[in-house]
Amino acid sequence: MTLRFGLLGAGRIGKVHAKAISASAGASLVAVADAMAPAAKAIADQYGCEVRSGEAILAAKDIDAVVICTPTDTHADLIEAFAKAGKAIFCEKPIDLSLARVKACLKVVRDTKAVLMVGFNRRFDPHFMAVRAEIDKGTLGAVEMVTITSRDPGAPGLDYIARSGGIFRDMTIHDFDMARFLLGEEVSEVSAMAAVLVDPAIGKAGDSDSVQVMLKTATGKMCLISNSRRATYGYDQRIEVHGSLGAATAENQRPFMIEVASKLGYTRPPLHDFFMTRYTEAYAAEIASFIAAASGKGKVSPSGEDGLAALALAEAALKSVAEGRSVRTSEVL
Amino acid sequence: MTLRFGLLGAGRIGKVHAKAISASAGASLVAVADAMAPAAKAIADQYGCEVRSGEAILAAKDIDAVVICTPTDTHADLIEAFAKAGKAIFCEKPIDLSLARVKACLKVVRDTKAVLMVGFNRRFDPHFMAVRAEIDKGTLGAVEMVTITSRDPGAPGLDYIARSGGIFRDMTIHDFDMARFLLGEEVSEVSAMAAVLVDPAIGKAGDSDSVQVMLKTATGKMCLISNSRRATYGYDQRIEVHGSLGAATAENQRPFMIEVASKLGYTRPPLHDFFMTRYTEAYAAEIASFIAAASGKGKVSPSGEDGLAALALAEAALKSVAEGRSVRTSEVL
Amino acid sequence: MTLRFGLLGAGRIGKVHAKAISASAGASLVAVADAMAPAAKAIADQYGCEVRSGEAILAAKDIDAVVICTPTDTHADLIEAFAKAGKAIFCEKPIDLSLARVKACLKVVRDTKAVLMVGFNRRFDPHFMAVRAEIDKGTLGAVEMVTITSRDPGAPGLDYIARSGGIFRDMTIHDFDMARFLLGEEVSEVSAMAAVLVDPAIGKAGDSDSVQVMLKTATGKMCLISNSRRATYGYDQRIEVHGSLGAATAENQRPFMIEVASKLGYTRPPLHDFFMTRYTEAYAAEIASFIAAASGKGKVSPSGEDGLAALALAEAALKSVAEGRSVRTSEVL
Amino acid sequence: MTLRFGLLGAGRIGKVHAKAISASAGASLVAVADAMAPAAKAIADQYGCEVRSGEAILAAKDIDAVVICTPTDTHADLIEAFAKAGKAIFCEKPIDLSLARVKACLKVVRDTKAVLMVGFNRRFDPHFMAVRAEIDKGTLGAVEMVTITSRDPGAPGLDYIARSGGIFRDMTIHDFDMARFLLGEEVSEVSAMAAVLVDPAIGKAGDSDSVQVMLKTATGKMCLISNSRRATYGYDQRIEVHGSLGAATAENQRPFMIEVASKLGYTRPPLHDFFMTRYTEAYAAEIASFIAAASGKGKVSPSGEDGLAALALAEAALKSVAEGRSVRTSEVL
Repeated sequence: MTLRFGLLGAGRIGKVHAKAISASAGASLVAVADAMAPAAKAIADQYGCEVRSGEAILAAKDIDAVVICTPTDTHADLIEAFAKAGKAIFCEKPIDLSLARVKACLKVVRDTKAVLMVGFNRRFDPHFMAVRAEIDKGTLGAVEMVTITSRDPGAPGLDYIARSGGIFRDMTIHDFDMARFLLGEEVSEVSAMAAVLVDPAIGKAGDSDSVQVMLKTATGKMCLISNSRRATYGYDQRIEVHGSLGAATAENQRPFMIEVASKLGYTRPPLHDFFMTRYTEAYAAEIASFIAAASGKGKVSPSGEDGLAALALAEAALKSVAEGRSVRTSEVL
Repeated sequence: MTLRFGLLGAGRIGKVHAKAISASAGASLVAVADAMAPAAKAIADQYGCEVRSGEAILAAKDIDAVVICTPTDTHADLIEAFAKAGKAIFCEKPIDLSLARVKACLKVVRDTKAVLMVGFNRRFDPHFMAVRAEIDKGTLGAVEMVTITSRDPGAPGLDYIARSGGIFRDMTIHDFDMARFLLGEEVSEVSAMAAVLVDPAIGKAGDSDSVQVMLKTATGKMCLISNSRRATYGYDQRIEVHGSLGAATAENQRPFMIEVASKLGYTRPPLHDFFMTRYTEAYAAEIASFIAAASGKGKVSPSGEDGLAALALAEAALKSVAEGRSVRTSEVL
Repeated sequence: MTLRFGLLGAGRIGKVHAKAISASAGASLVAVADAMAPAAKAIADQYGCEVRSGEAILAAKDIDAVVICTPTDTHADLIEAFAKAGKAIFCEKPIDLSLARVKACLKVVRDTKAVLMVGFNRRFDPHFMAVRAEIDKGTLGAVEMVTITSRDPGAPGLDYIARSGGIFRDMTIHDFDMARFLLGEEVSEVSAMAAVLVDPAIGKAGDSDSVQVMLKTATGKMCLISNSRRATYGYDQRIEVHGSLGAATAENQRPFMIEVASKLGYTRPPLHDFFMTRYTEAYAAEIASFIAAASGKGKVSPSGEDGLAALALAEAALKSVAEGRSVRTSEVL
Repeated sequence: MTLRFGLLGAGRIGKVHAKAISASAGASLVAVADAMAPAAKAIADQYGCEVRSGEAILAAKDIDAVVICTPTDTHADLIEAFAKAGKAIFCEKPIDLSLARVKACLKVVRDTKAVLMVGFNRRFDPHFMAVRAEIDKGTLGAVEMVTITSRDPGAPGLDYIARSGGIFRDMTIHDFDMARFLLGEEVSEVSAMAAVLVDPAIGKAGDSDSVQVMLKTATGKMCLISNSRRATYGYDQRIEVHGSLGAATAENQRPFMIEVASKLGYTRPPLHDFFMTRYTEAYAAEIASFIAAASGKGKVSPSGEDGLAALALAEAALKSVAEGRSVRTSEVL
């Protein structure tokens, strides 16, 4: 059986998913929709699918599943519509910037029993998965302290910042999801600090560009997160898990694994330039996992509830910064 | 313009090339031939091409280029036939185990002005290419001493050994090509030592399983090669170039880049299990380079002459072991 | 000129300093005092110095400087006495567990213009000094985010825990000093979380064994600290500084720098077993720095004020845990 | 019991041994002799020993052992004289540049039953010892292939070159000893290549500056050695042992173990600047081993016979280069 896909949104990340779907054995890309006609046509031409409107995809009999890569403010409406239409849904994070809206949307998903997977791509990175596998195998004993370092090579444009929901909802949200993925327990307490160190314009826009967060679960497991919107050395993405029996780390990735020695020392090249090159394998594995889940061969993970939980941590972090105190997740959920 | 391919040989490496061709923008796989019908059919089914006989591919008007992945003893004949038929040819190494036969074959290639590329895949490994790029940029100054370590995870079957032409022609040949690729000068002198340390049966079959080689060029540039047919820790593939201004190394690759700390120490996973997983990117880049060259957009490299030169070094190494002395390449060419 | 030393306290750390003083060019160890006569005698025998009482050392004309390695609750009294006696003083951290007592003691030091250096040995580790040197050279640009990981191989005995002042004052205090050393700005805000994950007995004793801390300066520079009283893989001591132009890290140290490859992977040995072996070079450099300062050839660093500042951060961290909020250092100082 | 030392030669390496002896528990430095009076006086002043003539040390009743750090051409005569005088002897490598002279000298040592240890300091490097310990523990299975990389940061002066005996006897000799230390079997066959790539003046002086060597034992174990008189990146000293069950490597050492990331990549500092800083710990352990052996508490290793064996490999390497063939060690011994 082949899962027939409609793609909503033909931008940068839409292209990534179009490629992954086309290369997958159990899937075919049937149609693509985008408000920008040339973008949709480019994907249609490259992968031999049709250009259709979103409405046509919603009504189509020959489409089983959709991938939602449209702007964030359309996600919740689209999820509800496609859930009601009985299609399996993969949606890029976040479902929405408002916790209330996300909750309402997830109610529709539950009521319609729709398959909904949220695009936390990092869970599918082979190196991070290998760390998680060590936890699952018991190599590390009880997980106790997680450290997540995540730095972008450079800040996005101010227009993006303006509609991003702020650094916690836009960037740290991936780390919140990773923390939950690794801690194996719900976070009960969040404390955060934020600063503007990279670009004063980001501060003027009401956002921060450098943040650090502490998390804690009910049993005392802890996590540290460090984020910056700028790293001269590339896309810095590391995780570390310390447990009762040992620790595991996933180090940074770079496209060329060489070292050059000279009188200046020993130099390895900078890291990947951003998520498109860093997480190539993760994007492919993510869509493969969705195809399996939508085909009834695996469980849907990360789920809509995972999306909600990560957003709640972002909300708590914002509240912590605003009030200068530790915030319980129960206060925001 | 699309380069239309015929694939000769549907074995392990044939599948690798079939996949690479199918995924390439400027190429299409039209037909596959194999003495084993089910093998050919499997590829035909997976990539939507026809099964044809070798003769039909030779005569076909809708095929511009062939990839030869048949047994070694058929390579030279096939190259000659397809060269005369005016098709571009990619042939897996070696062209033949006999230097004389290779020379005769290359004469036909020259006379017919055929495009012939030989499958030394390692030249296309991104990490090795990055080392070569440092040489070309001048970072290392004059290249002086190259060290190549190449160890297989395990020895092939005795039937393979029997028809392989021996470890120098089968395994070290890749390192001879890499040495030429990195030294940037022809090797003038070869000295080798060989032993049976892994499996006495290999010795009984008249071959060695552990060898080391020294190379030298006319200006004194040098190279060391270390080979073993067995490495418990995976597919060991390293290069190192020392020059007047510095040095560059390409370290081993592993599928999961994590490190686990425990009371036993800090452990990273074993290396890739063999060339199919280690050189995934190299195989894709190799075919892309062939497509470009066959389409007139780049030069053919490695060429048939590169194949001849590497084989001559294998011949000289054998002679060096037999006679316990340093052998000049002019003695065998 | 030779600086003539009296050593107060002949325990584990006293031995370290005795050795360092004896091996120093501009110093000699004249006398040692300890309530435990055999401990004092052992040092006297090994380094050829006299056993004297503390009072005799205080009154001695042939002693210029003292190293205080006695129990913490004697430090402040001894500092005051020796300051009044006009001797240069090196004192192991902390000066006292009470901020008020430290302030009173430092007043005496100021009034007597005594030379007082506090034993934050890590500032003298060559690797950490090299990171600091990169900051000072401007390689990293403006320091923005510091990450300090510090884990002991195992928890101390409960009797030690009981008189230690708690993990923040005993263990994290080193990291607080390192944070100040690297941030280059005073910390204005502290937020901490604490848990008992290693040993419930530590919890029953009113202490924590796993803590994480966030620091922030007035201009927004930030720091993360992660501490555990147990790491199966050895004495885990890492620092990382992220700045506007780049980042610098000092990785863990191990006694044997080898790697063993096998079918299980690539394994490096565990880390140093604890601070005595990890910071061997740092202890020597620390005493050398004190000798220089006491001889008028360098500035006293870390000073008594540095000791006070680090203790204040510990106090703030405790308050943060107790009140579940971010604490300003001005609240405790 | 204290072993009372006389030091012959107060040059660079003499100072290293003077320091090591002075810091050793079971030893004392009684006297130093050097043709250059100020050099001897400097050591005498620093370590509180006497300046004496070589003859006086030979005749002294208060001296049990000597350390010979004089020019190479005096070594054999001094060894014979002190052996006859019944003193334990530590002699810097080589015993002599002539195999015949070494053999004659060792006969005197045997006849007098003198304790003679030769200064192959690298055997005492903690990292190389740790590799050897893995071999001894059986972790690597049967040793099969050894790779030794040894590059000096820069070439010595031409006057040194002139009296050095050539690169094989002066520099590679350390690697020959290391090969024997790691192979655990005598080398039966040597093949070498040599070139002048660093400095033509070295070639004019009749020496080479870049060499590579292959060794083989009777059972087929093999070794590769790569030497250069110049490495811009510091003192390059690596060993690697590949065996039937695994492999072990000792990587390069550097004084500061930090890494700096910037837009140019990730850079670690250059290596140690030369053997004095690289092998600090080895020199101390070497003298400790000699003290133990001379005090009857351990075996003498490396022995005079080890010195002879390494020199024979150098002789064979020279012959191999001259004759362009593999040379059996039995041909030169």
